[in-house]
Amino acid sequence: MTTTATRAGGATPAFPPIWLRDNCPCERCRDPRNGQKLFGITDLPADLTVRDTEATADTITVTFGPDGHRGVFSRAWLEAHLSTSDGDGRTEAAKQLWQARDLEGRLPAADWAAYRDDPAERARVLRAVRDLGFAVLHGTPTEEETVLAIARTFGYPRETNYGTLFDVRVEANPGNLAFTGMRIAPHTDNPYRDPVPTLQLLHCLANAAEGGDSGLVDGFTAASLLRADDEAAFRILTTTLVPFAWSDASTSLRADRPLIDVDPAGHLREVRFNNRSMQALRLDPAATTAFYAAYRRFAEIIARPELLLTFRLEPGDCLVFDNTRLLHARTAFAESGARHLQGCYADLDALASALRTLEETA
Amino acid sequence: MTTTATRAGGATPAFPPIWLRDNCPCERCRDPRNGQKLFGITDLPADLTVRDTEATADTITVTFGPDGHRGVFSRAWLEAHLSTSDGDGRTEAAKQLWQARDLEGRLPAADWAAYRDDPAERARVLRAVRDLGFAVLHGTPTEEETVLAIARTFGYPRETNYGTLFDVRVEANPGNLAFTGMRIAPHTDNPYRDPVPTLQLLHCLANAAEGGDSGLVDGFTAASLLRADDEAAFRILTTTLVPFAWSDASTSLRADRPLIDVDPAGHLREVRFNNRSMQALRLDPAATTAFYAAYRRFAEIIARPELLLTFRLEPGDCLVFDNTRLLHARTAFAESGARHLQGCYADLDALASALRTLEETA
Repeated sequence: MTTTATRAGGATPAFPPIWLRDNCPCERCRDPRNGQKLFGITDLPADLTVRDTEATADTITVTFGPDGHRGVFSRAWLEAHLSTSDGDGRTEAAKQLWQARDLEGRLPAADWAAYRDDPAERARVLRAVRDLGFAVLHGTPTEEETVLAIARTFGYPRETNYGTLFDVRVEANPGNLAFTGMRIAPHTDNPYRDPVPTLQLLHCLANAAEGGDSGLVDGFTAASLLRADDEAAFRILTTTLVPFAWSDASTSLRADRPLIDVDPAGHLREVRFNNRSMQALRLDPAATTAFYAAYRRFAEIIARPELLLTFRLEPGDCLVFDNTRLLHARTAFAESGARHLQGCYADLDALASALRTLEETA
Repeated sequence: MTTTATRAGGATPAFPPIWLRDNCPCERCRDPRNGQKLFGITDLPADLTVRDTEATADTITVTFGPDGHRGVFSRAWLEAHLSTSDGDGRTEAAKQLWQARDLEGRLPAADWAAYRDDPAERARVLRAVRDLGFAVLHGTPTEEETVLAIARTFGYPRETNYGTLFDVRVEANPGNLAFTGMRIAPHTDNPYRDPVPTLQLLHCLANAAEGGDSGLVDGFTAASLLRADDEAAFRILTTTLVPFAWSDASTSLRADRPLIDVDPAGHLREVRFNNRSMQALRLDPAATTAFYAAYRRFAEIIARPELLLTFRLEPGDCLVFDNTRLLHARTAFAESGARHLQGCYADLDALASALRTLEETA
């Protein structure tokens, strides 16, 4: 334990003086009511030093120069900060990537009553959405608007021009191919929105039509396979801004984003894949040709049968999935058949918050 | 005009065959009801060629090999796609960066009645939010929940754990420094949320307190000054993932994002700046020291008096601003005084859509 004391006060400390001071837990530095810091970085001396440290079994008291400010740090807290962070859970670094065989016959699923009443079961389902990208709830009420109540168990529906919820069923004059009986190939929703909806819920009210089975592809698996197969193609897709758009009489949405978004550390963060709403690129011919070759490679990986997990939503089932990672699909169905889903969008940050709170109080 | 025909059919075309085919406007390729593409990229032949082109005054008909598919392209549409794109309007490339002197005494503002009733005035206000990052509406009703009605003129309130709207006034047991009378230095809101709210509205119901003036700083101006002054520091802030967090008994939000986010072309996209909710970094000591030096440089630029635009919100004023770009601030005020704002979050994509629709129908 003297290691930490030495590091804190030594010549080449693990914790530079500015880091210690910015994280000082004293009541002048942090509001004890809410833990928020009470100063900005320019309020701290530019020539900060650690003048002295005093260690006990549990704490290290740091006296800072030049102003003599003192802060008492927990040793356990300091030790915890010697290891690297596991991040915010939003990139591939925190995910379990899968192919169909990994989950066939054992979808992450729960019964609605258990999910609703048992915090441990709720945590298990939310963890599956975070780590695998989806979960299915069985036995939810087959009443309209149930999808909103389900979203409210872990977050907040995201209202858009499609409404707070949207009906997925055959329409006479469809503004979107979702509202026909056509096959829909694996895609992510609303790439023309920024911020894109990070979660989607699809709640099945009726599925008596021939066909209309559901499919999911792990877009992080597909992107990681592309990276392994053809790193140049991967790099093209992480760096080319692709215009997506959708419009009707009262809406004109547009977002230019890469098909594969990586964070500054190079970790997969988001996948966008939707040829339906992709607009014409404006690149020079060589860049256009290179982009399309990379796009085709990625699409060919996404289309591999071994990546497509298929299952059927029955009335009362609700699929919750990460729209920044998973691509969803459905097989064609007879437009005369009764198939009715209700969907809504929501966001991952609130779901992750609900899960952390469940884990902390468990 | 033969240029385009030559380019489309020539040996080194401006429009490679795959680009033309992916953008084919025929009814088999695009649903005429909604304009969405009816195929995926892997549905197209891998060995596509342009077999023949036929030009008229207004169109170019392309016959593709190997399958003989034909598409009729508008010449005007093709010509338009020879120039580079102006993007989706979300980066510095589409913005008017400002310092305080550029806007002092002439804030982008409008009267509520004119905004509500005149589409041209509404477009002017929304354009200011898009291009300058903010606008002020005067003379809105001083009734509670008006902020939600204002948000609905261009988009959708984003509900969070703070509610659909939040009250900014002095609270006995504040969960956030906003709910005290303390000075709040320039910051962006909710950096611990991902997706971060891209728009914020603050509607003034009462401001009789001594102090409590508002301030705005253009974070894109500050980031571009940092880039010009110290490119190495700029690069550190675009590439270091900074953990932000906020929690209470039922919430535990966390997001790791850089202070300055640039798109793959290097354009400024988002700024996050909020020491209050910044958590302890876990980097090696050298990286920690370099980060803090860069962070201080950025903070010193943000603190330059010439960047801070100050004004006072009067009852009935509503400030609408881009939370991915502008930092907002307020001076301290007497906690005994009556100051009451109502705020809500919303998103820029819907605002940009509303503006495009107004511009297209004007």
